[in-house]
Amino acid sequence: MTETTHTHTPLDLSGEIITAVYALKGTLKEAAETAFDIGVEQTVEFPLDLIEQDDIREQIVGEVLSVETIDEDTHHATIGFPMEVAGRELTQLLNVLFGNISLKPGIRLLSFTLPKNLLMRFGGPRFGIRGIRELLGVSDRPLICTAVKPMGLSAEALADVAYRSALGGVDIVKDDHGLSDQDFARFEERIKKVVAAVNRANGESGHRCRYMPNITAPADEVISRALLAKAAGAGGLLIAPGITGLDVIRQIAADDGIALPILSHPALQGAYTVHRDSGISPGTLYGALNRLAGADACIFPHFGGRFAFSPDACGDIRDQTASVMGHIKPIWPVPAGGMSVDRVEEMITFYGKDIILLIGGDLHRQGPDLARTAKNLMERLELIDPQRPSYAPK
Amino acid sequence: MTETTHTHTPLDLSGEIITAVYALKGTLKEAAETAFDIGVEQTVEFPLDLIEQDDIREQIVGEVLSVETIDEDTHHATIGFPMEVAGRELTQLLNVLFGNISLKPGIRLLSFTLPKNLLMRFGGPRFGIRGIRELLGVSDRPLICTAVKPMGLSAEALADVAYRSALGGVDIVKDDHGLSDQDFARFEERIKKVVAAVNRANGESGHRCRYMPNITAPADEVISRALLAKAAGAGGLLIAPGITGLDVIRQIAADDGIALPILSHPALQGAYTVHRDSGISPGTLYGALNRLAGADACIFPHFGGRFAFSPDACGDIRDQTASVMGHIKPIWPVPAGGMSVDRVEEMITFYGKDIILLIGGDLHRQGPDLARTAKNLMERLELIDPQRPSYAPK
Repeated sequence: MTETTHTHTPLDLSGEIITAVYALKGTLKEAAETAFDIGVEQTVEFPLDLIEQDDIREQIVGEVLSVETIDEDTHHATIGFPMEVAGRELTQLLNVLFGNISLKPGIRLLSFTLPKNLLMRFGGPRFGIRGIRELLGVSDRPLICTAVKPMGLSAEALADVAYRSALGGVDIVKDDHGLSDQDFARFEERIKKVVAAVNRANGESGHRCRYMPNITAPADEVISRALLAKAAGAGGLLIAPGITGLDVIRQIAADDGIALPILSHPALQGAYTVHRDSGISPGTLYGALNRLAGADACIFPHFGGRFAFSPDACGDIRDQTASVMGHIKPIWPVPAGGMSVDRVEEMITFYGKDIILLIGGDLHRQGPDLARTAKNLMERLELIDPQRPSYAPK
Repeated sequence: MTETTHTHTPLDLSGEIITAVYALKGTLKEAAETAFDIGVEQTVEFPLDLIEQDDIREQIVGEVLSVETIDEDTHHATIGFPMEVAGRELTQLLNVLFGNISLKPGIRLLSFTLPKNLLMRFGGPRFGIRGIRELLGVSDRPLICTAVKPMGLSAEALADVAYRSALGGVDIVKDDHGLSDQDFARFEERIKKVVAAVNRANGESGHRCRYMPNITAPADEVISRALLAKAAGAGGLLIAPGITGLDVIRQIAADDGIALPILSHPALQGAYTVHRDSGISPGTLYGALNRLAGADACIFPHFGGRFAFSPDACGDIRDQTASVMGHIKPIWPVPAGGMSVDRVEEMITFYGKDIILLIGGDLHRQGPDLARTAKNLMERLELIDPQRPSYAPK
């Protein structure tokens, strides 16, 4: 007994709930127990028999809404958490959905929904699918993105790579995510030189290629780099929320002084998705959470590339970039990770035409004339039926 | 060929290297290939045959220094990365150590070392073991910490829990990590009331209990909450770097205007350590990285509690809180997660006397008089031989 009844203010909750679905390993009985434990661990984190306030035990603790058997060893449990436990914050929402239970094996967060009055606190992506199409003046074809690399080149040499890619008509030139502020190409110099190079290419080609530099940076420098990039004329921002924390994306997306598209990069996040029995589903991590935070596009490994993602994982991401989420806009899937030019049609079939095709090394492999290669690729895209439907999620 | 030779500035690297040891699954041949791939993926992320600058291929790409077979299916590879690829930043260092390869199964980061000129860029913990002992005036016994909970109590009721814990003489009263800024106990009101309660208890008891509130918060509010806590008289800060990003700890530790001990909480980080074959070793994640960033103490699940951590995992954390790391101070291990009062001696034997014993629910289970229970526990600690050596890492 904590003997605090005399100072306890009775709860006055709305009744609106966050729901979260978890895949749980074990027998049905074990899964039911784990589901119950999740409701406790993610809220009061305290033995229920020691809580003397009935309203805390009955209203704050997450409630098991259902446990469904998928196979002998796998069950899906839906837990309802009162919206108030997440307060007003994406950070505390992450903590409620998967904070402490990330430390337990055999629990995987598959999906979540927010009640209207919590969802309304999040602005989501500033641009999304339509907003980026408008910026680029591209009404219905897939987009092409390539990366400025390799690390070790000077700012001037990187700008030259960007110039030649942009000249061929690619829509987006982004920094390689490993380019930060190294001596061989300091951030400010790189941004200025690459912006100038892309602008020069656009002037010559008539295209509207946008350069999106990497602003993944120390906590006290992310915003200043975003503002510096904006002031220098960058056309978007690349950031790795696994390194900076996801909420930085929310902060940037909401900032009217920045107002640039945000590409989210999965660096350091793979540990959440690499095992099927734990962590967070790819669709929730790379799709729904990026989207809720306000990323306009999410990069992830397409199956069959350098990374061992499955078609199921990629389908989950595709679905959760576009599924119904109140006023929160759908975002661009950016399948990547060793994609080759000859897989373009296959990827469009899988994701629909609302896709950013990120092709790095393989663009260079087509031959020394990068502008010509990019142009060939863009022409190939023009041949794809503009009436091809976007992928419609279930 | 990228045709950029004409603009390439020859590299002028120091030759100092970051080393990282990875556990790799598969045959020795597969492990050797994976090790080579890591050197490429974590630096240039580009096909080597397409890099025409010899110095980038030879100096930027991570070099496989050794591959050692542990058992038929497990090998330890040591990779050397030029210090310059990490620039000046903890964020880019994280990216080099485990960014993209987090997305690949069968790769686990076991440990890393930094060369002197990179390590010098990090201040590490402001207090560490000795600094916190000095603040508390406790020269050589283990410390006791308890948590203010459960969520759902008002600020006033939480302050009452803190008062009664502090009155019994516990050294640290921390917020439960799920307390953020919810309606039932808003951040500012909670901090003020709990600080006042702990100060009142100290005045009555003569102890120096310190209250450490949770400042895990939206990206644009973490620092303002830290400053508010400081101004209100808090004695330390609790933060979950898995939610905020690890670099926020570095930022706070370096801030002379805050200058408070930092307790790091593992919420959301468990996905990195929950599988043995991938992710990051517990010692590196909860020990070395927290320490490098500047946390003074790291909370993690002790084995045999609510979480399935192994003795090996806890030993790894213990070792990496205290191992040689240049000028970076050793930090406090804070084993937790359902620890009971009757395990205190066992935990001190395992970790040594430089340990913060975090006991939450079980302190309440001893009976309604929390101050008496805390006092009994503190008396029990006094009986432990003060000559008991600290745990000495190998």
